[in-house]
Amino acid sequence: MISNLFRFGALFLVLTSSTTVRAQGRRPSTPNDTLRSIEVSDDHRVTFRIYAPKAGEVSVSGDFGQSGKMEKDDQGVWSRTVGPLTPDFYSYSFNVDGVRTIDAKNPMIKPGLNGLDSLFLVPGEEAEFEMTKDVPHGEVRAVWYRSGTLGMPRRMHVYTPPGYEGGSERYPVLYLLHGSGDEDSGWSTIGRAGFIIDNLIAAGKAVPMIVVMPNGSLPRPGNLPRPTPDAPPSPEVMAAREAAQNRFTDELLKEIVPTVEKTLRVKSGPENRALAGLSMGGGQTLRVLTTNPDRFAYVGIWSAGLFGGNAEEWEKRNESFLAAADKVNATVKRLEIRVGDKDSLLAGSKALAGVLERRGIKHEVQIGGGGHTWINWRHYLGDLAPKLFR
Amino acid sequence: MISNLFRFGALFLVLTSSTTVRAQGRRPSTPNDTLRSIEVSDDHRVTFRIYAPKAGEVSVSGDFGQSGKMEKDDQGVWSRTVGPLTPDFYSYSFNVDGVRTIDAKNPMIKPGLNGLDSLFLVPGEEAEFEMTKDVPHGEVRAVWYRSGTLGMPRRMHVYTPPGYEGGSERYPVLYLLHGSGDEDSGWSTIGRAGFIIDNLIAAGKAVPMIVVMPNGSLPRPGNLPRPTPDAPPSPEVMAAREAAQNRFTDELLKEIVPTVEKTLRVKSGPENRALAGLSMGGGQTLRVLTTNPDRFAYVGIWSAGLFGGNAEEWEKRNESFLAAADKVNATVKRLEIRVGDKDSLLAGSKALAGVLERRGIKHEVQIGGGGHTWINWRHYLGDLAPKLFR
Repeated sequence: MISNLFRFGALFLVLTSSTTVRAQGRRPSTPNDTLRSIEVSDDHRVTFRIYAPKAGEVSVSGDFGQSGKMEKDDQGVWSRTVGPLTPDFYSYSFNVDGVRTIDAKNPMIKPGLNGLDSLFLVPGEEAEFEMTKDVPHGEVRAVWYRSGTLGMPRRMHVYTPPGYEGGSERYPVLYLLHGSGDEDSGWSTIGRAGFIIDNLIAAGKAVPMIVVMPNGSLPRPGNLPRPTPDAPPSPEVMAAREAAQNRFTDELLKEIVPTVEKTLRVKSGPENRALAGLSMGGGQTLRVLTTNPDRFAYVGIWSAGLFGGNAEEWEKRNESFLAAADKVNATVKRLEIRVGDKDSLLAGSKALAGVLERRGIKHEVQIGGGGHTWINWRHYLGDLAPKLFR
Repeated sequence: MISNLFRFGALFLVLTSSTTVRAQGRRPSTPNDTLRSIEVSDDHRVTFRIYAPKAGEVSVSGDFGQSGKMEKDDQGVWSRTVGPLTPDFYSYSFNVDGVRTIDAKNPMIKPGLNGLDSLFLVPGEEAEFEMTKDVPHGEVRAVWYRSGTLGMPRRMHVYTPPGYEGGSERYPVLYLLHGSGDEDSGWSTIGRAGFIIDNLIAAGKAVPMIVVMPNGSLPRPGNLPRPTPDAPPSPEVMAAREAAQNRFTDELLKEIVPTVEKTLRVKSGPENRALAGLSMGGGQTLRVLTTNPDRFAYVGIWSAGLFGGNAEEWEKRNESFLAAADKVNATVKRLEIRVGDKDSLLAGSKALAGVLERRGIKHEVQIGGGGHTWINWRHYLGDLAPKLFR
């Protein structure tokens, strides 16, 4: 392609479609060469397309709420139009004759520990808070550190606000945890954390802050049996699980926070630290709070699965935390519990709120719409950040 | 999952397989639930697997050199074993009945402008230079800046070496350009740039440096007709193309270098600047060199498609650069041209070397093995970095 262009004496630096190159090279062209696999119209309808001439059944699914079968045209292109959708980012994947596949033509993806999803944006007012806008942008870094607790190199993602590089100011820090199946990049891909904070800072709605996004998925400790629903575990297994559970608390408080406070220009003290997490990360957040209630002045527990709805055992095990309500209330300026009313983990959040209420630990519980999805978690971040460090 | 675990009084923080969760919830299990889609054995053989019970033909292809058909077992799982392969990172995708799909179960991917590829690593001695090792790691940042040249927010990736954050030292800068179809993340995903430099610094083989990886894929200027092979373009179109071509040179020299030198702790002067690029980025590198030969002391032109093998027109157009050979030789300490002997763009590199030789511009040309692939470009970076800033 480039060599052809140079025959005309000029290198034409525009995007070259690799599918076009392939078509020129070796095989006849197909409808796939020019296919637009995802198309968002001005009225917020979305059309999905995939070329699969030999398939018998093709469907598209995701968190946009209108999953279903696609229809084939006489060229072998399957399509489905949904919407109009509320402006937001959504994830999707195709299923071709039983094979789950992401959209190989769409570069916007969400990586995870167990696989991938494709993403699309329906632009519009409701998504303004999370879109890439023409405002000053902070930086998102992949930072490696050596964890003594885990005995291995570990990675975290770190957002620094506009003006951090080359400046001398110190900033407060939000520690933001992902859920099971994700890793430390999740809050920067599908989570849009940097863009959400950029937009809030640009609008004067949030104070400039650093956001640290650790990897919360820990390696499985050796020889620890998986839990089964059939038999309650032995006391030895319970103790081993407790130790495994404490590893993330150690990782955060003995490795990550000290590394951040040593290498970045941060303000120290609990009033300059916030901790929030979703799902598994919400459980980790709660565990950090109950074992170390003097470290974070702002705490968000989002869509967390807790106690299976039965809080009794949890209350017994956390008596020393619960009995110190006055001390907790003196440090923690904001403790929020958020979950969607269609989230299968709703009961745990309610149960936690019930215990905290009864034991006099100040908190705010918000049960909104939606399910166990990143749609909710991006909004939760957008709502929480303006309330931090004021 | 989490709520079940809490019934036993402990939250068990290990990786949860999302496929397992799905299997428990709604549908009977399939071989796909526990499928290992990519498996690398100790003897460097690699097995690819995909569950596609209804498909009639499935193949796997990529840059590992043994693409081909897969075989179906009685469970509907298709597989193919290749190798042994030389230790390295490789890319692959599946083709299921004519539908190209990446491996939806493998989180290691290479994003690009036109789609995705899956990646795998065959670990071993030959790949040591590019593997994630237990050494001090630098940071890789996604940095946004506002481009006056292009009138939009633009992103670049920036590697800073271990010790940059929190230190006060200034560092030299390598500007590293990607090829057509990629964007600024390419050198940090499939390109492994940060890990390659980390390993060289840890071994004392390269001086600590900053690596700036811009986005070289420019938006298409309005109304500029696409070139066609049938008719040579008019002088007006030639001029418009020349202007389009100059946009990246402007973007680099008027936007990126000044932004980097203003916000990061860098050493200035040509002796502290290197520029290298592959394919389209090699063409951009050559254009920057010929129009601004006093800015970079180290220049790498890798796998670039140049002149379609015919250098006459190019030589005419670059007479002022070529006539100033002494001046160029005084600034440029190293000018290297590298390409693989199976690269379809081989002729252009040879032609460029021929012109430079004849006109007395010092350079080194290395024609090695391999084709137009990231396998070569990672090695080219690993070879060049130790020679920089000495």
